[in-house]
Formats: sequence, structure tokens, C-alpha cells
Amino acid sequence: MSDPLRIVLVSSRNPLNIGAAARAMSNFGFTDLRVVNPYDVAYREARSAVRSHYILEQSRQCSTVVEAIAGCTLVVGTTAVGNRDLHIPLYRLETGAELLREHLASSAKAALLFGSEKFGLSNDEMSHCHWLMRIPTRSEHGSMNLGQAVAICLYEMRRQAAAVNQPAFEKPPVASSEELERLTAVLMDLLVESGYAQERTLESTELKLRRLIRRINVASNDAEALLGMLRHVLWKMRQAR
Amino acid sequence: MSDPLRIVLVSSRNPLNIGAAARAMSNFGFTDLRVVNPYDVAYREARSAVRSHYILEQSRQCSTVVEAIAGCTLVVGTTAVGNRDLHIPLYRLETGAELLREHLASSAKAALLFGSEKFGLSNDEMSHCHWLMRIPTRSEHGSMNLGQAVAICLYEMRRQAAAVNQPAFEKPPVASSEELERLTAVLMDLLVESGYAQERTLESTELKLRRLIRRINVASNDAEALLGMLRHVLWKMRQAR
Repeated sequence: MSDPLRIVLVSSRNPLNIGAAARAMSNFGFTDLRVVNPYDVAYREARSAVRSHYILEQSRQCSTVVEAIAGCTLVVGTTAVGNRDLHIPLYRLETGAELLREHLASSAKAALLFGSEKFGLSNDEMSHCHWLMRIPTRSEHGSMNLGQAVAICLYEMRRQAAAVNQPAFEKPPVASSEELERLTAVLMDLLVESGYAQERTLESTELKLRRLIRRINVASNDAEALLGMLRHVLWKMRQAR
Repeated sequence: MSDPLRIVLVSSRNPLNIGAAARAMSNFGFTDLRVVNPYDVAYREARSAVRSHYILEQSRQCSTVVEAIAGCTLVVGTTAVGNRDLHIPLYRLETGAELLREHLASSAKAALLFGSEKFGLSNDEMSHCHWLMRIPTRSEHGSMNLGQAVAICLYEMRRQAAAVNQPAFEKPPVASSEELERLTAVLMDLLVESGYAQERTLESTELKLRRLIRRINVASNDAEALLGMLRHVLWKMRQAR
């Protein structure tokens, strides 16, 4: 199956960034990479492409944007600039990724363009795009590292809105009131044994302790583990008496 | 105002990654960085921290995780491993970021821990965490570059669910039917002038053209611009006759 989203890096200066982009592509399951006029033709050797050299090896080097976006029915550019007079729709990444997913859902091919580290996409390169999107960075420091920008865009493409508020972890059953009471009792014995609880404060200490134990919301198996530890301490103290 | 989310990098090997983490922090407006046992004590010079040296300069170097998380009421670890027997809740980033935001909303302090590039967080380091979260990478290639992982987590923290489907761009008004008809007329004149439209196909060509022009959904100002261009071409052709 050919990958419906193509990543296009235009005039990237640093092979490490190209390698980092390839690694993020592998992390999120994208494989179609085209590189337009990289400053270093040996970009395929990038050391930062940990476990992702297969993407660099099958990437295509192009001399023009037109060649890089061939076959795509949607071309999307990325920009760090929020308020340039762009004459082209500009969306936040959250919205843009949704529009991209809708396009890809009809098994149409799309390209996502990233400009050079220093200048971003030129006006000429942008003129090939149907629309632009920007990562919602601070306006005071909008420009991101290229590898990080690619990673964030691909994460957002794979993000599952439905995953929010669906805990992946089943909370273990909380301790029963019997377990809590056993825990309270052995702790109370320890306080008496150590002399912390005195005759005249015995009752109020026990009350405080019981309330405290109910507040800590301990799991059943943790209560059993604690009980074992504390009983051993108590046994040792009584032996030493 | 002190920053409620602290980023803690544990045993990072590569100062470039620490610099990249600082840059992402600046991009998304976080400032509180602590570094536990970095392999290179000169990490503050990291060249990759473009425009973010202020974060490295005010970062604190710690010798233990305990020192790094001091003052935090929630400690969250990150892991690339989805199925390790962790004995601790593990959430996808989408969910974890939501839980973190809820905690920070009560102006309580939280720490977000990232382990070393090679091994991630150790079991000992994880034992300081209330829960863990993972970026939803492919299971076949889960391990991310450290700088990219930090960038994605901070993006998700700043992500606005409400931004989805809220176009930041006002579509310009579409062309009126009068403008579309003027466009059709001048194109038709061009087709006649050039000999494309012949006497016997005149009517059917005009029909096709009128339908085509209605399908392209051109904006009002673009229709006027096109009209100007085409009228000039027509004028030139008639002059050359």
C-alpha cells in the first residue's frame, strides 16, 4: 500500500534534521519522503535517523517543488508566521490535520511541505499550496526546529481524539473496611508499643489514625503489603522488649 | 509568575537534545527546566537551543531525581514502552496531558520526567512518578528522539481542542453570477477569436464553458483579476488580427 501522506522537505540545510524527520516518520508510520534541493546531497547517511534509514534510502531527491508534489491532489504548506499577508488560508495545526485526514480518507494523495530551517517556505514555494498550517507556538518565538516541527505534525495526524479521558489503566480495587481496620489496629499497636500513644491520649489518637487511614485511599493489595511490613516491625519491637 | 510545569531531563547523554528540549520549551512558553546528571556538564552551551539560552542559563542541575522534583505535587514520567509490567498507571499522551492540565489548573506544581536517550527512565526513577504517559508511536518503532518527544508533549499541553474546525481564515466572498457571466463571455470571445469554437459547436461550447466556470468556485476578487488578464489577451489578439 502506498502511503497517502507524502512529507516534502524543501531546501533543508542540515542532514541531521532530515534524519530526525525520517525518524519521526517511522515513529508514526509514514514512509513517503521527498527532499527538494537539500544542501547536503549525502543526507541519506544522516546519523540521526535511528532505525529509519529505510525511509531515507527509498526517499526521492527532487530539483523542484513541482516534481516533489507530483500526483498529489492536496498540497499543504507549513509556516511559523501567523500574521503574514499570505493570500491563502492559514489554519492552526489542530484544524489543518483534521482537514488533511478528511482528504486522505478518500484515499487521495496529499503532500505536506516544510521549508528551510532558516527561511521557511518561500512565497514561490507557498504558491503551490492549497492552504497552510501553523503549529500553535508563542508569537514571541514561533520558529521551531525542523525535526521537532515534523514530529509534532505527524503526531497530530495520528492523534486520537477519542483517546482523551479513556484511562488505559484499570485502577486496582481499593481496600475493604476490614483491611483498613486491620491496618489501623496494627499501626495503633505500633504507636502504643513505641510510646507515641499515651494512656490519656489513646482514644483521640486512635480516632485521628482511623480517619487518616480512610483518607489515604489505599488499594487492597497495597494494604495487605503494608500490613505485612508493619506486623513484622511490631513483632521485632515486641521481641526486643 | 513561576511556571507550574517543570521539565526534568534525567541522565541525558547529548547536549544537543537538551538544547532542543529548551527550544521547544521556549516555543510553547515553558521555562522551568531541571537536568539530572547530564553526561555533558557543558550542556548550557548547547548550540541547538536557538533563541532559548535563557532557559538553559536559569536551568538547575541536580544530582538526584528527588532534588529535581522538590516542591511538585504531581510527578509524571514518560515512557516509550507500552506493555511493560509497570505497576503504575500508564496513559496515552492525549489523556495524560488532560490530567496534567487539570492538576495545573489548581495552580499546583507538577514535574514531567524524560529518561536517557538510550534507556529511558529506570525503574528506580519511575518509582518517583504518580503515573506515566506514552506518545502513541508505532509499537514496531516506539522510541523517539528526546528533543522530539519533549516537543510533542509540550505541544499537546498547549493544544486547544476547541481550535479544531475553527478556520482561522475568512473565506473571501465568492464571485457573483454577473462576474461569472462576464468571465464566461470573455473566455468565449477568446475561444472564438482563437478558432477553438467553431460555428457549428458554438452553442455547446458555451454551455460547457458556463458550467465549468460555475464549478470552479472562484472568489470575487480573483474573478476580477482573471477578467482583467483575459481582456488584455483578447485585446492583444484582436490587435494582431
